[in-house]
Amino acid sequence: MLKYQQIANEIEKYIQDHDLKQGYKLPVLEAFIAQYGVSKSTITKSLDLLEKKGVVFQVRGSGIFVRRHKREGYVSLLSNQGFKKDLEDFQLTSKVIELNVVKPTQEVMDNLNIGPDHDVYYVKRVRYINGETLCFEESYYNKEIVTYLNKEIVSESIFQYIREGLGLKIGFSDLFLHADQLSPEEAELLGLEPGNPKFCIESLFYLTNGQPFDFSKVTYNYKQSHFFIQVNGQLI
Amino acid sequence: MLKYQQIANEIEKYIQDHDLKQGYKLPVLEAFIAQYGVSKSTITKSLDLLEKKGVVFQVRGSGIFVRRHKREGYVSLLSNQGFKKDLEDFQLTSKVIELNVVKPTQEVMDNLNIGPDHDVYYVKRVRYINGETLCFEESYYNKEIVTYLNKEIVSESIFQYIREGLGLKIGFSDLFLHADQLSPEEAELLGLEPGNPKFCIESLFYLTNGQPFDFSKVTYNYKQSHFFIQVNGQLI
Repeated sequence: MLKYQQIANEIEKYIQDHDLKQGYKLPVLEAFIAQYGVSKSTITKSLDLLEKKGVVFQVRGSGIFVRRHKREGYVSLLSNQGFKKDLEDFQLTSKVIELNVVKPTQEVMDNLNIGPDHDVYYVKRVRYINGETLCFEESYYNKEIVTYLNKEIVSESIFQYIREGLGLKIGFSDLFLHADQLSPEEAELLGLEPGNPKFCIESLFYLTNGQPFDFSKVTYNYKQSHFFIQVNGQLI
Repeated sequence: MLKYQQIANEIEKYIQDHDLKQGYKLPVLEAFIAQYGVSKSTITKSLDLLEKKGVVFQVRGSGIFVRRHKREGYVSLLSNQGFKKDLEDFQLTSKVIELNVVKPTQEVMDNLNIGPDHDVYYVKRVRYINGETLCFEESYYNKEIVTYLNKEIVSESIFQYIREGLGLKIGFSDLFLHADQLSPEEAELLGLEPGNPKFCIESLFYLTNGQPFDFSKVTYNYKQSHFFIQVNGQLI
């Protein structure tokens, strides 16, 4: 982790630990520079990162302010997609239903940009939050990139393992969202009725070089699916 | 619009007009500098903006590449929230059901950070895409900020009017997403059955100074609700 990222994490932690509210004015740039003993450009990078993450907003000529939201029980859709951090107050567990090396379907080939002879790891899990079914998840990992998985790894945070165990650098991701009705099989996995709503997120994760390595389809229990996104001005 | 934003728009338009695919390598920085006759820092800002918007990705030491996705019919959830640009190939129309100045409910007060005596514009619309019901929308605008609305304005893009007509600067927004079941009234507005899924997005829009001015609740026809988000590495 680079210096500016470390500092960004420390500032974010300070905001959380002190439960600072939206609109709380943070110290001026010079105070941060003095506190962390780094250059102006490092602090500027830290604050830009925090702004991108929706932790602060900067008002030209006026200062840097805390950015938060007020909704309990909503989970960030973009950051911490492994759910670990946002959900550390919750009891989150996984049950691995299947872990296999398989040949890709057409859909998986299209998404992972591979041919029919490529091997992929197929992982099917059900995840529980506070004892209730949160979602079930089918993931396909290009085995040329994610060279090894086992049941213990996929019971925990796969992404932490991919980053720290395999040393892969995750570049970016595409998410596709829609709502639909549960099929009988899906309803059974989630403990709901067929025809009930489902909140679906398909995601494609890429390495920094643009190669896709993970295609996942997650079907959420609609009663548990509350997500938030903090959007920056440049994207509106 | 600043120079670097103009250039970013031109590069984005070039990519779209030429239908360049994901992974297509763009010219080197120096070529852009020569083409647009601007400084390196301006081009760097243009490319950073395009990276934030998910239009390109930069690989250190290797170059700048086009970023796209392959799904037809998916609409960007983050950029162009007015829907205009993404949907310009579609027939999008609105029917205004109600436009009134009202006093805020507790929910609206909490979200817009105002007291009970404040006036808000209440707008209720149904939106159609290619003749089918896309969503219905209830919006509350703080009348101290959005000082004037009329039926003609709210039949079109309210955000374009807010930006260009009122000259307001939109800073950032919070989105809250969930799925649920349609009530009988909601089902009738969308032409669906009670109990069918709904895809709900509540949003809060803030000025650059952090003041919230628009609280909106949009309920989508699940058959039409297909959204994508392009996420950058720093947020994963």
